[in-house]
Amino acid sequence: MTQTKEVVRWVAGERPQAAKDELALEEPLEIQVDTRPVGVTMRTPGHDDELAAGFLVTEGIITSSKDLIKIAPHPRNSTNVINLFLRNTPDLERLKRNVFVSSSCGLCGKASIENVHRHFKPLKSRLRISSDVLLGLPEKLRKAQEAFARSGGLHAAAIFSAAGELIVSREDIGRHNAVDKVIGYGLLHASLPFKEHILMVSGRASFEIMQKALAARIPVVAAVSAPSSLAADFALESGQTLVGFLRERRMNLYAGNHRIK
Amino acid sequence: MTQTKEVVRWVAGERPQAAKDELALEEPLEIQVDTRPVGVTMRTPGHDDELAAGFLVTEGIITSSKDLIKIAPHPRNSTNVINLFLRNTPDLERLKRNVFVSSSCGLCGKASIENVHRHFKPLKSRLRISSDVLLGLPEKLRKAQEAFARSGGLHAAAIFSAAGELIVSREDIGRHNAVDKVIGYGLLHASLPFKEHILMVSGRASFEIMQKALAARIPVVAAVSAPSSLAADFALESGQTLVGFLRERRMNLYAGNHRIK
Repeated sequence: MTQTKEVVRWVAGERPQAAKDELALEEPLEIQVDTRPVGVTMRTPGHDDELAAGFLVTEGIITSSKDLIKIAPHPRNSTNVINLFLRNTPDLERLKRNVFVSSSCGLCGKASIENVHRHFKPLKSRLRISSDVLLGLPEKLRKAQEAFARSGGLHAAAIFSAAGELIVSREDIGRHNAVDKVIGYGLLHASLPFKEHILMVSGRASFEIMQKALAARIPVVAAVSAPSSLAADFALESGQTLVGFLRERRMNLYAGNHRIK
Repeated sequence: MTQTKEVVRWVAGERPQAAKDELALEEPLEIQVDTRPVGVTMRTPGHDDELAAGFLVTEGIITSSKDLIKIAPHPRNSTNVINLFLRNTPDLERLKRNVFVSSSCGLCGKASIENVHRHFKPLKSRLRISSDVLLGLPEKLRKAQEAFARSGGLHAAAIFSAAGELIVSREDIGRHNAVDKVIGYGLLHASLPFKEHILMVSGRASFEIMQKALAARIPVVAAVSAPSSLAADFALESGQTLVGFLRERRMNLYAGNHRIK
């Protein structure tokens, strides 16, 4: 997931020195459905099957491994093109449509949330989570990340059980890809929907991350860093719990406080 | 650029407390060209004219303020829809086309770079920059950001002269938007191309950031955090200097070392 590069290191007042540095790999991946291209994403290679499957889940194209016949690399470009064969012909036009416009405002945060809810209903989960479990997650995520921490350029996403057990963690140059990968893992291991789980992300939580979590029916999203205003609004309207600034045994709750014991 | 929200703060071993927190605003913006929608981006409101103009520059649709007749908010949704009227009818199909596939590999990092170079030629700039100027930029960026540092959720991008003078800095929930905003500022103030300038970004440097910099003809890109492998390859092939981990009076050079004095 990383590549070693020759660099020159400068420290103020010292002579520049040749050195080696490990950079997070970034390469394009084209996702095809029944041999038709549906999207290209710049991603860190690895777990591409999960990334592609998760992408189709979070775009609302498939919901379970039963929808999927097989995943196959492209015959001529096996590293950067992946093909998913589906049981039923999907409405691929959905992927191209602008799904933001609606509501009284025409286009605004509220309309963006309403549009997502047309396809992914708000949650009515009665799940409760202990605050101790949440406060212990950053340490677990950090340990899972250790092998890849060298480059400093990878985002992490992880799924935890309600008891705080790590189910899967994945890393990628793009936070949205890391989230698609863990959700794709869920689909490929028949553990979707993640109805009693926590999604944790290494950085910030945006509208897009909350939308992907809702697609996988995840009731609790925790971010090491800040959420956006729209992420907080989205969580509130979607019955999700949103935890931000989760680090050093502290956290802020932006929505769904009732779920924390 | 921020919104105050009610939160509950938890610290391990203490009682949870109600508090207020400022979150970075996130709202959709639809960009229209001659009243035709060409894209929707989730952005932090503010400097939307710059964002829209910069988006058209970095997508290769316009190159100077002469290409632009006027920028006007939408008559019915002035906050989230913006319209750019251009002097010449652009090839909008470009925006929809998949521009990644080509080259011997079909789809790979190398092909992605070649594709960008079809539209934006590599640079042949003879600009030299002093290492002292570069090492002093983080401090200047931090000062420019101070007013907005509260939310912890905003990315910054800034343009500096070769002498280290701050030309413009902008913030946004999306790093690519912050970069589009400073480039759009350049277009609207007739200071494009930024041939003798430095682009600095608050976080990581990816392929996309390097591509946007090349579109504005920027020879030096500096990031506070790590670049990706493809960002380094892109810089090397494009005649750009790429500086990473620029902080605490240190930096790593990944490409274009010859430009640093």
